[in-house]
Amino acid sequence: MTNAPGALMAADIASQPTVLQSILDRSMESVAPFRAAAFRRAPRFVLIAARGTSDHAALYAKYLVEICLQLPAGLVSPSTLTLYDAKPDFSDVLFLAISQSGASTDLVESTCRARQCGAATVAITNTTDSPLAAAAEFVIGINAGRETSVAATKTYTAQLLTLFLFLTGLEASNVPEAVHQTLQGSSAVDHHAERYRYADRIITVGRGFSYPTAREAALKLMETSYLPALAFSGADLMHGPLAMVDSQTPVIAITSSPLALAALAPVLGKLQAAGADVLEIGPVHGLTVAVADIATELIPIVDIVPAQLLAHRLSILRGEDPDRPRGLLKVTSTR
Amino acid sequence: MTNAPGALMAADIASQPTVLQSILDRSMESVAPFRAAAFRRAPRFVLIAARGTSDHAALYAKYLVEICLQLPAGLVSPSTLTLYDAKPDFSDVLFLAISQSGASTDLVESTCRARQCGAATVAITNTTDSPLAAAAEFVIGINAGRETSVAATKTYTAQLLTLFLFLTGLEASNVPEAVHQTLQGSSAVDHHAERYRYADRIITVGRGFSYPTAREAALKLMETSYLPALAFSGADLMHGPLAMVDSQTPVIAITSSPLALAALAPVLGKLQAAGADVLEIGPVHGLTVAVADIATELIPIVDIVPAQLLAHRLSILRGEDPDRPRGLLKVTSTR
Repeated sequence: MTNAPGALMAADIASQPTVLQSILDRSMESVAPFRAAAFRRAPRFVLIAARGTSDHAALYAKYLVEICLQLPAGLVSPSTLTLYDAKPDFSDVLFLAISQSGASTDLVESTCRARQCGAATVAITNTTDSPLAAAAEFVIGINAGRETSVAATKTYTAQLLTLFLFLTGLEASNVPEAVHQTLQGSSAVDHHAERYRYADRIITVGRGFSYPTAREAALKLMETSYLPALAFSGADLMHGPLAMVDSQTPVIAITSSPLALAALAPVLGKLQAAGADVLEIGPVHGLTVAVADIATELIPIVDIVPAQLLAHRLSILRGEDPDRPRGLLKVTSTR
Repeated sequence: MTNAPGALMAADIASQPTVLQSILDRSMESVAPFRAAAFRRAPRFVLIAARGTSDHAALYAKYLVEICLQLPAGLVSPSTLTLYDAKPDFSDVLFLAISQSGASTDLVESTCRARQCGAATVAITNTTDSPLAAAAEFVIGINAGRETSVAATKTYTAQLLTLFLFLTGLEASNVPEAVHQTLQGSSAVDHHAERYRYADRIITVGRGFSYPTAREAALKLMETSYLPALAFSGADLMHGPLAMVDSQTPVIAITSSPLALAALAPVLGKLQAAGADVLEIGPVHGLTVAVADIATELIPIVDIVPAQLLAHRLSILRGEDPDRPRGLLKVTSTR
């Protein structure tokens, strides 16, 4: 059976409101008990391990931990536990491993190692019978259903919502509707995709909670449209890479919250002075997102959606099939 | 006074053996007492804050902490402390702030905040009378002398060596000679720079201790040659970005230690299958480094040197002046 190019990715993107609603509907059974058990251990430090798209969910989780839990957090380099055989003292550590497939060898090994070193280990995965799930003390399924497209979309937003529910225990009931409205209002995507037809590079930029979206948007553009996409926090872009920007360098700025917009304003000024072609993903200009009623911490679940659509459309415009990125398989195993 | 293009950067690069030797000569006064005082506090977690080039020194420090100190570590997002006003519990935390200039507002503010929250704070800086130095409890000067080039080179390797001495307390006496020998043996750089004259993108890849070098090499290429340079850990490159690689995509692989070479071998195989033009920075092929007698943890101080030279030469070949990158000032202030 062959599908039209991008049919699988389009279906995954469109299903996100339904997937997110089902996560909310099941959260009292699938998230709340593990939240209670893990936090009974009173963690002092949170470590998060992931690869690829899930690494951007890990970055989101890091912001949640630092801001909402007021705990120090770090993104783990799995290699330090696997390649270099470190055996750190992880008592008081909450160790989150995030993976759609739960199959990545280095994640499984680092989770085993973290558990041996005394951490409370939690697997956040779409595959609750995976090796990663077997390795962790607590397993939280993201209930996203099978993801048929190689490029992760619905499993990413499902990871974010699950992490939010697990880490904060707060309400997120208006998120599915905001994603639905953002999908409905996405007609400008086609126009912007046209503009990037012959681009040979692109920069994405965010700050704070909009930085994980900048990173994930860049990855989607790389894996579906083969466009070298460089993601920066606004602050880091000013340290060096700004020199690279000229009128041939399109920039996508994630300005979806008032805080991100304010923090990025000086960066956008510098980019415009350098002649860059800037597109905003935000509530007002450019690719619009329906985030008027959404807490800042939940906006990353919504503002990635226009970027997913843009990557999908651009891939097709450039003659590629986003469902069949060259050289990639759905499950990547590294150690 | 005008200099020949790149004269300042060339002088900074060439001075590195001398700078590194002077750090070793002064370390009993400038590093050891602060090491003793900071570790008397028995930190359980280490947080590291930095921007730009210093962020790659921070990544190096993270590996040192995880592997040599066997403590959990995290790279801080300064914005969570400054933009979102988090007040986390930082008792038991060792907080390292790394900055050449010590002037970046967000670093200064996050160091103040970390100190208020109970962390032992250490500034690692080339400017010991800077606002950052004033904010931190302990101040360690990197003694690199004034850096006149905008692109940081000698302050980067000076940061790495200072971090190594501070975090491990171990010997590093053979590093200046290894950097000297690497500079002496760098004649192949001109040839490789020619090859990238018309490249419109480049990928750098490392793993473990060679990953900070991959990141810093990419930044040097961006800020001096305006080449979009994407740095990946070998594992992350396999998750998505591999799709972007083709015969028009040069790749620089940092294979300077046996461990890095072994870990990157499967990645190099995939890259070659995709038609990529791969250049190794390592002891044998490509751009060679004199690391035969150097501990794995110290190799990042040596293997960045050929990349600095390559960025310098390529910038000049492309008609630019690496001493005057467009749009950049030596001190970047962000908040």
